[in-house]
Amino acid sequence: MTARVIIQKYGGTSVGTPARIRKVAARIAETVREGERVVVVVSAMGQTTDQLIALAHRVTASPPARELDMLVANGETISAPLLAMCLAALGVPAISLTGLQAGVRTSGHHSKARIRAVETDRLRAELEAGRVCVVAGFQGVTEDLEITTLGRGGSDTTAVALAAALNASVCEIYTDVDAIYSADPRVVKRARRIEHISYEEMLEMAAVGARVLHPRAVEIGQLYSIPIHVRSSFKKRPGTMIVAELPMEERSRVRGVAHETDIAKVTIVGVPDRPGVAATIFEPLGEAAISVDVIVQSVSETRETDITFTIAESDLKQAVPLVRRAAETVGAKDVKASGGLAKLSIVGTGMLGTPGVAGRMFRTLAEGGINIEGISTSEIRITCLVSNAQAEAGVRALHTAFELDSLITRGKR
Amino acid sequence: MTARVIIQKYGGTSVGTPARIRKVAARIAETVREGERVVVVVSAMGQTTDQLIALAHRVTASPPARELDMLVANGETISAPLLAMCLAALGVPAISLTGLQAGVRTSGHHSKARIRAVETDRLRAELEAGRVCVVAGFQGVTEDLEITTLGRGGSDTTAVALAAALNASVCEIYTDVDAIYSADPRVVKRARRIEHISYEEMLEMAAVGARVLHPRAVEIGQLYSIPIHVRSSFKKRPGTMIVAELPMEERSRVRGVAHETDIAKVTIVGVPDRPGVAATIFEPLGEAAISVDVIVQSVSETRETDITFTIAESDLKQAVPLVRRAAETVGAKDVKASGGLAKLSIVGTGMLGTPGVAGRMFRTLAEGGINIEGISTSEIRITCLVSNAQAEAGVRALHTAFELDSLITRGKR
Repeated sequence: MTARVIIQKYGGTSVGTPARIRKVAARIAETVREGERVVVVVSAMGQTTDQLIALAHRVTASPPARELDMLVANGETISAPLLAMCLAALGVPAISLTGLQAGVRTSGHHSKARIRAVETDRLRAELEAGRVCVVAGFQGVTEDLEITTLGRGGSDTTAVALAAALNASVCEIYTDVDAIYSADPRVVKRARRIEHISYEEMLEMAAVGARVLHPRAVEIGQLYSIPIHVRSSFKKRPGTMIVAELPMEERSRVRGVAHETDIAKVTIVGVPDRPGVAATIFEPLGEAAISVDVIVQSVSETRETDITFTIAESDLKQAVPLVRRAAETVGAKDVKASGGLAKLSIVGTGMLGTPGVAGRMFRTLAEGGINIEGISTSEIRITCLVSNAQAEAGVRALHTAFELDSLITRGKR
Repeated sequence: MTARVIIQKYGGTSVGTPARIRKVAARIAETVREGERVVVVVSAMGQTTDQLIALAHRVTASPPARELDMLVANGETISAPLLAMCLAALGVPAISLTGLQAGVRTSGHHSKARIRAVETDRLRAELEAGRVCVVAGFQGVTEDLEITTLGRGGSDTTAVALAAALNASVCEIYTDVDAIYSADPRVVKRARRIEHISYEEMLEMAAVGARVLHPRAVEIGQLYSIPIHVRSSFKKRPGTMIVAELPMEERSRVRGVAHETDIAKVTIVGVPDRPGVAATIFEPLGEAAISVDVIVQSVSETRETDITFTIAESDLKQAVPLVRRAAETVGAKDVKASGGLAKLSIVGTGMLGTPGVAGRMFRTLAEGGINIEGISTSEIRITCLVSNAQAEAGVRALHTAFELDSLITRGKR
């Protein structure tokens, strides 16, 4: 195959109604007329997935994961043929493909399967024949042809995986936001549209609250150097390109300010400092599917230490008894838990080797009268825990302090 | 595999709601507890198929058949996992299978595919492992793994085909009628439940108005000698067994009276008697998907003949211009058409070689003042055309004349 391929992924909102499906088809038709070979990945229409899960719960309280995958996969095998029909009606040759037909091979972990490989024979043959392929996202099959679903961010992951397998020139993610912004535009009126962002920056942004694209999709993009273009289904203008190398002029030190509210902090006090202690504490949380974040272990001169970590406040009630039990097992002194917190993060590869960024962040928050209740850093990110009530003021102060404010105040998007 | 298998097929009404799915699961669980190995075939829930087709027509007026099959097949891949979940909740190990997973291989005629073979490896392995297989009916795949649907009577056909492939002891068709009757019980209060009926009789009954089971399913049953048990989803007692050999005592001459109303009769007068004429007349009707029935060609001593046939009255408006054009082409003299008719048929293998049956039918109708407007016969069936208005009286008269009346008058079913 000589000509390169474009992948376009449309989310559930973009294909939520027959009218919207027709709009999406018109957009794809335009791309085809520009001479591109297109593979489309679709999510289920609007609320279909939730409706199917609700149906399952009307027959049994605890549906087996394997059967739930069989059921839920119908969401995408409904939207895909509808979109293909619509393209055909516009005179664009198109064919819908299930995960199996598109060659998406996964592990057998139902409801959270991982893509192992994409067998591209069928896709390449259809593209050669001049057809747009409309692939049901979020799903694949195991070696035994068992149907699996990919879990959170599944359709994005399908799209980037197909882009990697077909060596696509770009993977376009059409969504209901029109770009990645330097901060949440609902909070910061002068938030700046980011034209280019590196994979690492996007991963850090996603990890601390920017929910536009799931990290696993970004990771595949990074691994196979696939440019990912996040853009609006409803507007024409380009959005944000996620790439390996930023254009020189865009390599500012801090690229964005992310925040996430409703965080709880748990501290285990007086933990004996010996191997295996952390595993004893965190394994039960993992088994209960509670995501743990920002783990900080203070170093002490005695043989004891304090371990602090954050979780979503909604998980707190379930987590505390698990942590107390683990704390007893390892012989810790006490467990303290408090909610009402927010994570405030600054992200940017430009921070690497730029001294003073952390100091500037802490000073900015101090000047705004915002108390810092915890700190965690990666090479390209600094996160502070602050109170929920002060989070938005903090975001705005940091956005200004790191010279991210756009020259124009944005109106309604 | 030593133990034999039972196939149970449940139609759309039987699995129309979560509550009904739970009832069906309880029934299957009972069969499993009796020590049977069970393969279940399900239709789509209630109106799902119609809803999916309506959705297609909201995006385009003429969806391609291939994409419509992709879409419509979701109906059964929704109901199958729901039923499997429900069985699991009752402690019955079960697994749902798509047409592809169940090995149903078909021709590539989308929306009316024919089953070519059933590859039973997966089914046998699941049965060996002690699981109930819940197979999505009405669907299969081609050699290229393209998804097809089987058209009218599709799920019944899946069930009987699986029964043949697995050499099942019986194929049970659960439906909303509780048996085949000697006449429509809504018309004849003394209609008799038929305990056994031969494949031939069932085929003739189906062809002339008894719509319980599609003829193509019966044909496969006959070809592979699979007993088919038509019975109620909602009641316990046995229904009708369709078999090759009737028990001696049940071989009465006439087994049932079938009727079908809203029939139209078309006569082409003065057709030149030469080869190819019939083809010229009937091919355009076939292309327009108009079913033609009861074709009678009168023999004449001149080189001209009259051809009469029946169609559904709802097809008359579309058919007449096609027939007129064909009549002109072959040089016939006139075309006459009239509606408001009904087919009245008596069926029974016992009629073979029993003289006087036809005479008795005609005399019975004459005594009832019912005019016969056409006659057609097979070896085991005699059909008379009568007016719609006299059809029900005719059914009752024939039912009594051929000694089919049950000793008890039936109340509400």
